[in-house]
Amino acid sequence: MFIKCCKDTRSLARTGRLETAHGTFDTPSFVAVATRGTVKAVEPKALGEIGVQVVISNAYHLHLRPGEDLIAGLNGLHHFAGWNGPMMTDSGGFQVFSLGAGKVHGVGKVASIFPDEECGGNKPQLKPQGKPLVKLSEQGATFRSIIDGSEHFFSPENVIALQRKLGADIILVLDECTSPLHDYDYTKNAMERTHRWANRALLAFEQTSSDIFSNPRQLLYGIVQGGAYEQLRCESARIIGSLPFDGFAIGGSLGRSKEDMHSVLDWTIPQLPEEKGRHLLGIGQIEDIFAAVKRGIDTFDCAAPTRIARNGTVFVKGAPRHRINLRNARFRDDSRPVDEACDCLTCRHHSRAYLRHLHLAGELSYYRLATIHNLRFLVCLMRDIRGAIAEGNLQELEHEWLDEQ
Amino acid sequence: MFIKCCKDTRSLARTGRLETAHGTFDTPSFVAVATRGTVKAVEPKALGEIGVQVVISNAYHLHLRPGEDLIAGLNGLHHFAGWNGPMMTDSGGFQVFSLGAGKVHGVGKVASIFPDEECGGNKPQLKPQGKPLVKLSEQGATFRSIIDGSEHFFSPENVIALQRKLGADIILVLDECTSPLHDYDYTKNAMERTHRWANRALLAFEQTSSDIFSNPRQLLYGIVQGGAYEQLRCESARIIGSLPFDGFAIGGSLGRSKEDMHSVLDWTIPQLPEEKGRHLLGIGQIEDIFAAVKRGIDTFDCAAPTRIARNGTVFVKGAPRHRINLRNARFRDDSRPVDEACDCLTCRHHSRAYLRHLHLAGELSYYRLATIHNLRFLVCLMRDIRGAIAEGNLQELEHEWLDEQ
Repeated sequence: MFIKCCKDTRSLARTGRLETAHGTFDTPSFVAVATRGTVKAVEPKALGEIGVQVVISNAYHLHLRPGEDLIAGLNGLHHFAGWNGPMMTDSGGFQVFSLGAGKVHGVGKVASIFPDEECGGNKPQLKPQGKPLVKLSEQGATFRSIIDGSEHFFSPENVIALQRKLGADIILVLDECTSPLHDYDYTKNAMERTHRWANRALLAFEQTSSDIFSNPRQLLYGIVQGGAYEQLRCESARIIGSLPFDGFAIGGSLGRSKEDMHSVLDWTIPQLPEEKGRHLLGIGQIEDIFAAVKRGIDTFDCAAPTRIARNGTVFVKGAPRHRINLRNARFRDDSRPVDEACDCLTCRHHSRAYLRHLHLAGELSYYRLATIHNLRFLVCLMRDIRGAIAEGNLQELEHEWLDEQ
Repeated sequence: MFIKCCKDTRSLARTGRLETAHGTFDTPSFVAVATRGTVKAVEPKALGEIGVQVVISNAYHLHLRPGEDLIAGLNGLHHFAGWNGPMMTDSGGFQVFSLGAGKVHGVGKVASIFPDEECGGNKPQLKPQGKPLVKLSEQGATFRSIIDGSEHFFSPENVIALQRKLGADIILVLDECTSPLHDYDYTKNAMERTHRWANRALLAFEQTSSDIFSNPRQLLYGIVQGGAYEQLRCESARIIGSLPFDGFAIGGSLGRSKEDMHSVLDWTIPQLPEEKGRHLLGIGQIEDIFAAVKRGIDTFDCAAPTRIARNGTVFVKGAPRHRINLRNARFRDDSRPVDEACDCLTCRHHSRAYLRHLHLAGELSYYRLATIHNLRFLVCLMRDIRGAIAEGNLQELEHEWLDEQ
């Protein structure tokens, strides 16, 4: 359940708490991406030390491997993964999209067919990836496994059943994502199907309970669609927002630019009920975080902070775009920590020169150290954002961050 | 400095302590392999929690990348890597061998041209790998970098200089390793060159001091060679053992079977002075550990425990060969920890089923969790071995382990 705390006077930003069966977390909050039941390169136990309060796994990926029945038999995803804090699961709607229209159009939210690896995007790169691996119908989506080619079927109902078995605290309905390249008519039809699927998901949710003993009360979020079309986003937010969901996610194409994304949020958020949580799917660049929070977003997830870490890019406040790439030769003998103001394990113990060496040598220990830093950096940023909202100086904090980079 | 404590009455096994500029550790001890300044998949900070007391890095690998001058400029390898405990560096003799005769003969201690990935070996697999990348002369070894093809020269003297710059607590001389396929004459000549190089290394060592402020007193180990020939091993041990080294390593070809390796130790150890430490290079299977300890070995290093972990094989006392492979389908819903008697982070928090899932999904967090377990398992085994030597029941402990598997 979402409990609103403070409200910014100069924007729609707000602080709050989200109460779940596995504890309460503060909002606005960054949700760490743990697609297959682990944040990449960081075991669940370490997340608490970093200050991560909530993670999001992916029902589609866990369905394919190791399977929801296996996880249910081992007392659910929390127990399976050794993470006892708040957890979300995404439904798989975005994966269905990425295997279908996303693949044909060569776009994701950014441009990848590996959606859990991409986010924060606005610039479709048009590299069509071939035939779709998914067949959509009113009933649901039939698709082939990327692991073994086996055929699978997702419906609004069985995706609820799947997530009942996983037992996450906040679960999402199945939706039909559209691509930035879809026209108005296609986007409208997909949105209307998403609305019909939302009602079916709600019914399925009401008729079932979690199989997982530790999670008697899951929260179900509806998903707003409508592409980058004002009329559709408003309609979708109004219709989805009127349904008895526990919260709402903004999904699908967010347009072709950051301005488009801002517009989508500007159209959508005011139509959603104040007293429920709002999640933005797959966004997490620093400038996007401020843009989303100011427009009333409570939670967002993004694989980029951990993905860029693995590629050598780590956050440093004040650097261009608040990031440096450790591959750069100027760090070869740099004895400073990644960010001198950071208190993470990595910055307390290791230099840029050492991390650069590990990265260039392909040492596995690099990935964890870099990921820990980027997660801690965002945890601290979100803490500062919550503090700024409470004290009425979010705008100043945003200027401090966005003017400085 | 090595300080002998207890002596087994029924074998040459002994307990002791090795005092270094970065602390004292107990022997017999497993030395964790940190080839490039990190144990693969485990950052240095975690090693202390696992109970690892000493690590060994590799001068050859660190020379190629990032270079000893860079490390010296950052206050030495301890500081660079964030490891403040006892540390050894291997000289690179084995790497020179593996790029030369090892490559031509298709053998390592086992059979790989990636020597840091192999050990515990006895069975040469004859897969010649082509032309040698090294040219040996009386002066030293000229070889090409496996990273960028650049030409490098190692001599007994400059390998001391290299290790002076790295600043490890225990350093090794450059030796000429031979292959199990080399005949008596070749092996004898190589051994004699190794002896001449030992004297040159000692002289270079005496004429220099560590560049690293934190390590005013490095310990230098000589290396015994002689292949699997009794006469040569005895001669080499006698000659090297008479030189004023701080300790001794048993290097080179250990023959073609476990029995050969046992014989090499039986010939060598009695010729070495009682009051100095003895290191066995690149051995670490559980049965080999008992065999080596019983024959008077104080320390040994091996990359196999961490390498097999990355491949899915984790130690379980009582399983066949005290190991299981998590890829096996019977672990898919196994809710037990890897080893119910183990107190490591992995076993305290995660099931075999979860680790199997992470491994099959290729998740980076798997590698660390599995490596932590295998290292902790060996740390505990060595603790038990030391206890058994002190209490006079090493033989019973060996039976318990080797009969049970």
